Amino acid sequence: MDERPDGIVVRGAKAHISEAPLSNELVVVPCRAMREDDKAYAVSFGIQANAPGITFISAEPEMKEAGNFFDYPLSASVYINDALVIFDDVFIPNERIFLKGEWQFAGHIAHMFGNFHRLSAETYKAAELEMVAGAAALMAEYNGIAKAGHVRDKLTWLTYYTEAVEILGLAACEHSVSDPDSGLAYPNPMHANIAKLFFADNWHQAIKYVQDIAGGIVATAPSAADWDNPELRPLIEKYLGAKLGVPTEHRLRLIKLIRDLGSSYEDVITLHAEGSLAAQRLSILELADFDRYKAAAKRAARIADGSYDAIYSELPEFPPRV
Amino acid sequence: MDERPDGIVVRGAKAHISEAPLSNELVVVPCRAMREDDKAYAVSFGIQANAPGITFISAEPEMKEAGNFFDYPLSASVYINDALVIFDDVFIPNERIFLKGEWQFAGHIAHMFGNFHRLSAETYKAAELEMVAGAAALMAEYNGIAKAGHVRDKLTWLTYYTEAVEILGLAACEHSVSDPDSGLAYPNPMHANIAKLFFADNWHQAIKYVQDIAGGIVATAPSAADWDNPELRPLIEKYLGAKLGVPTEHRLRLIKLIRDLGSSYEDVITLHAEGSLAAQRLSILELADFDRYKAAAKRAARIADGSYDAIYSELPEFPPRV
Amino acid sequence: MDERPDGIVVRGAKAHISEAPLSNELVVVPCRAMREDDKAYAVSFGIQANAPGITFISAEPEMKEAGNFFDYPLSASVYINDALVIFDDVFIPNERIFLKGEWQFAGHIAHMFGNFHRLSAETYKAAELEMVAGAAALMAEYNGIAKAGHVRDKLTWLTYYTEAVEILGLAACEHSVSDPDSGLAYPNPMHANIAKLFFADNWHQAIKYVQDIAGGIVATAPSAADWDNPELRPLIEKYLGAKLGVPTEHRLRLIKLIRDLGSSYEDVITLHAEGSLAAQRLSILELADFDRYKAAAKRAARIADGSYDAIYSELPEFPPRV
Amino acid sequence: MDERPDGIVVRGAKAHISEAPLSNELVVVPCRAMREDDKAYAVSFGIQANAPGITFISAEPEMKEAGNFFDYPLSASVYINDALVIFDDVFIPNERIFLKGEWQFAGHIAHMFGNFHRLSAETYKAAELEMVAGAAALMAEYNGIAKAGHVRDKLTWLTYYTEAVEILGLAACEHSVSDPDSGLAYPNPMHANIAKLFFADNWHQAIKYVQDIAGGIVATAPSAADWDNPELRPLIEKYLGAKLGVPTEHRLRLIKLIRDLGSSYEDVITLHAEGSLAAQRLSILELADFDRYKAAAKRAARIADGSYDAIYSELPEFPPRV
Repeated sequence: MDERPDGIVVRGAKAHISEAPLSNELVVVPCRAMREDDKAYAVSFGIQANAPGITFISAEPEMKEAGNFFDYPLSASVYINDALVIFDDVFIPNERIFLKGEWQFAGHIAHMFGNFHRLSAETYKAAELEMVAGAAALMAEYNGIAKAGHVRDKLTWLTYYTEAVEILGLAACEHSVSDPDSGLAYPNPMHANIAKLFFADNWHQAIKYVQDIAGGIVATAPSAADWDNPELRPLIEKYLGAKLGVPTEHRLRLIKLIRDLGSSYEDVITLHAEGSLAAQRLSILELADFDRYKAAAKRAARIADGSYDAIYSELPEFPPRV
Repeated sequence: MDERPDGIVVRGAKAHISEAPLSNELVVVPCRAMREDDKAYAVSFGIQANAPGITFISAEPEMKEAGNFFDYPLSASVYINDALVIFDDVFIPNERIFLKGEWQFAGHIAHMFGNFHRLSAETYKAAELEMVAGAAALMAEYNGIAKAGHVRDKLTWLTYYTEAVEILGLAACEHSVSDPDSGLAYPNPMHANIAKLFFADNWHQAIKYVQDIAGGIVATAPSAADWDNPELRPLIEKYLGAKLGVPTEHRLRLIKLIRDLGSSYEDVITLHAEGSLAAQRLSILELADFDRYKAAAKRAARIADGSYDAIYSELPEFPPRV
Repeated sequence: MDERPDGIVVRGAKAHISEAPLSNELVVVPCRAMREDDKAYAVSFGIQANAPGITFISAEPEMKEAGNFFDYPLSASVYINDALVIFDDVFIPNERIFLKGEWQFAGHIAHMFGNFHRLSAETYKAAELEMVAGAAALMAEYNGIAKAGHVRDKLTWLTYYTEAVEILGLAACEHSVSDPDSGLAYPNPMHANIAKLFFADNWHQAIKYVQDIAGGIVATAPSAADWDNPELRPLIEKYLGAKLGVPTEHRLRLIKLIRDLGSSYEDVITLHAEGSLAAQRLSILELADFDRYKAAAKRAARIADGSYDAIYSELPEFPPRV
Repeated sequence: MDERPDGIVVRGAKAHISEAPLSNELVVVPCRAMREDDKAYAVSFGIQANAPGITFISAEPEMKEAGNFFDYPLSASVYINDALVIFDDVFIPNERIFLKGEWQFAGHIAHMFGNFHRLSAETYKAAELEMVAGAAALMAEYNGIAKAGHVRDKLTWLTYYTEAVEILGLAACEHSVSDPDSGLAYPNPMHANIAKLFFADNWHQAIKYVQDIAGGIVATAPSAADWDNPELRPLIEKYLGAKLGVPTEHRLRLIKLIRDLGSSYEDVITLHAEGSLAAQRLSILELADFDRYKAAAKRAARIADGSYDAIYSELPEFPPRV
């Protein structure tokens, strides 16, 4: 960061910025708490995305073929366009600057960003998980195994997973917290971090269950090109059919959706978008009220060490002395 | 059940009735939906616990020695007194009868009992888990390993587990459902079943973590009798001490609490009280809205089978055709 | 199957036949035990792969771009070419027929095929897992986090997983079983099924750990086309660099390998190739010696029900009566 | 340690020494690698257990009532008698001393002790797990639920767990290693650590499954005192019966065995005896051949950094260049 009378000039890069190349405006915030040494990095500002000096390098898309919704129903529909955003001496006018070296506030901004960002994950994941649970249930139906005990167990677990994410995310909103200085209401950080950790930590299990129900055909299904070949279609129709009454085409389309759901791309954005598992774990550990928890254990173990807790120290001895 | 003009005479037994021998009144309800064949079992009534013909056979308590709170801090404090309650031709007067052969209603009662009972588990388990998390955190502190990476990971997980149970249970209340006929509000069944399944399914993991942090001493600590022996106490003080500043007595008391927490008794009531894991799984499967889930998957996979869903069928095609 | 004096004529299909289109000869065996009703399907034979009437429909490959080993190091190198093999009135001469309606032997053949096939999975998986564990260890090194506690835990688990598969698979060979009729030695079925279940059941966990160590960059890395662009390479070099001394190119190549390892394709062939998890579970349940296990429990619980076990019933009472 | 012309005088304590008070001789070895500063602790010797100055403080037994094999079939039969062994100026004559301050060898001894000790765990655990699997299978039979899908899944998992421990432990013997100096053969350290980690890490899962199959009755069964009461026995016989043909007594005995198997004591000795999970993890990490693993990843990712591996660097490029 260089200072000028009318603004600052910044250089550096931000990684993994979803939809950045599709945006009109970029808002840049610090990514962590900072110390005085980090002063030059303690900047925050808004800037139009096409300002001179800004370069985007987009991620390689997961989709294999644009517009082929048969083979790639999800990856050909959704491309988040995560980009590496490079600032090469970009001028930021004073009126667009939020932070200019006040390193003491960097942590507040980063932390508050996290509070909202965790929840944003739950909002789309709750919907995506309905699709995952639905893909498993529909596949079980198409494969004629919906009544098998182990399939019912997996569908139950997928329901539990799906609904718990919805409940936990909603609770983060319903138990929102107000910032005492600004009056800004934000999602409950403990709730939002738990919701994010819960869904990200269990994603691979969910995908494993869907893949287990679907079968090896997810790896070996023929492509749209074969399906569209008039010589091959009758053979595929006959030999890769679903249970009676379900068109082979529906089964193939569902198989392709399940392949898309289990991609590296889906795995990795579930784990790392909106903060990695390690970030949620760190937040939860910092938010934990271990003094209260320890007071509960001390009361039960009858450890009298002179510490006081507003809840547990006020409870009567148990069982009451006779 | 035999009918008399002034009431009914019942015989049979109810198993695992917590606190039954300590109660003034017993309320008996059917345990499942019934068919016409089961008519004789479709009874519900209230009766004083000392009515002629009622016998209680209490469970063997987990506690080893009454009043020894050093060695058995939990099991000597809490004895739920689960009993087998036997009705040997017990007369129930008409005015105490709620159901007398109307088998069509048996399922409603059993189901509604479950709705409340699941939640009752969360209310006490949320408090118990604070004790479990606190025992782990305090033990880590006493053993001088609170900063170790794997210990911090375990404390984080225990916090996540503890707080998620609180959030899910509270959400069951906040999203309560009203019975259309009676106006009775009851805990949200999906939320309450998820909360119960979440805590019961993860209990053994929690106990494993606490035991891992505590060390083999949980299995090998000397008893109160040794601690109270003036010849032995100085040796125990010296060789089984905690980190500097923590009395050995406190460490021993905590070790004993952790032993009590990991008992078969605690394991089994966590799994089975308020309904087994299988009961929650069955409830969740029944409550699942698979039609909506499947609609989500069909939209994504572009499966047009003529089915309609109020949410997903109304959404625009994605991505929009250009 | 139609019979002719000089052979049989077969029609039908075999699904998921790895490398089939690359083979000179196909050997066809029954896939399960059969009953008399299934007689027409109880056939086994060898036939050249280009016999009249045979059609292959190959699976869609996972690779996105042939020959692009930078972006797709694994999927562009390995294409197993699983195919649907269709037999449309294919003539099999008598001298190539192994089974022709003798349905009683179908199960033996299917079962013996499984015994060898389970083990074949372990042989290549043991090598693949060295690559998985190595990718995680190298990524931790490149990202400069190899000393972090949670990373060391994950590397330990990956080593445990990798080495256990090797040990279990080798044990299946070392404890091979001989068929009493033919003298044929085959891999120990219990050992081979346990080895297969162990690696397939834990694969998603392994991939999750590798992805966790690697970071979101696995989903968002730029492609070879960007890397080969002389304007962009310096920017990528600078901003996506590894720790000091490691070329950015090496980090990118490793990131791409990790993306390939976590693909749907890898997930699904690990779960389903050489038999699904359900197939291994069924085999293990059938092979289990529950009589011996129960005898162990009866002895410990002092249940005298008159049953006899060659091991446990011969052991002395414990503790000995004084 | 003080030196005298005819021997040394030692003081200190060893914790958790199984069977120590029942032994004739004690062999003392260092518990870890040592540095020059630790010289005074680098001692190893044999001594008769009743030598002057030795005190044992035994662990509190898990058993509740000596000789009551109905209620405590396991804990009344087996008491390992782990003891804190205190040496208060115990004289060790020169001819019983193995190590006297040669700190450089402390680590070798500790490490070699671990090699054998890990395996000793597997030998008894393999037998104990047959009892655990048998208790589950028998309970499923007694409760009439052996055919339920989720029960079969649990029995399959318990078989897999039981047999894998046997296979891994046996492999540690079959792949034993010879010490180059002494010619001493010892269990393969990688195999033995994996076997120990595998069984200890999965124990709580096994117990959870057994408890799940057994039901809440494990927490609420009446005691032998009630069973022996002639007024109560007919009621217990009738209302706590097993499936037809199984005496209620057998069911009760099995329930009590399952309670004993799930005790804190069993949990903790499984986790911590013969070294904690952390000890096994550390050993596995140290034994891991990460150079070979990394070479596998480098070859696959085509990372040419000049490193050489005897296996992977000698393999041909794949796929071959055309």
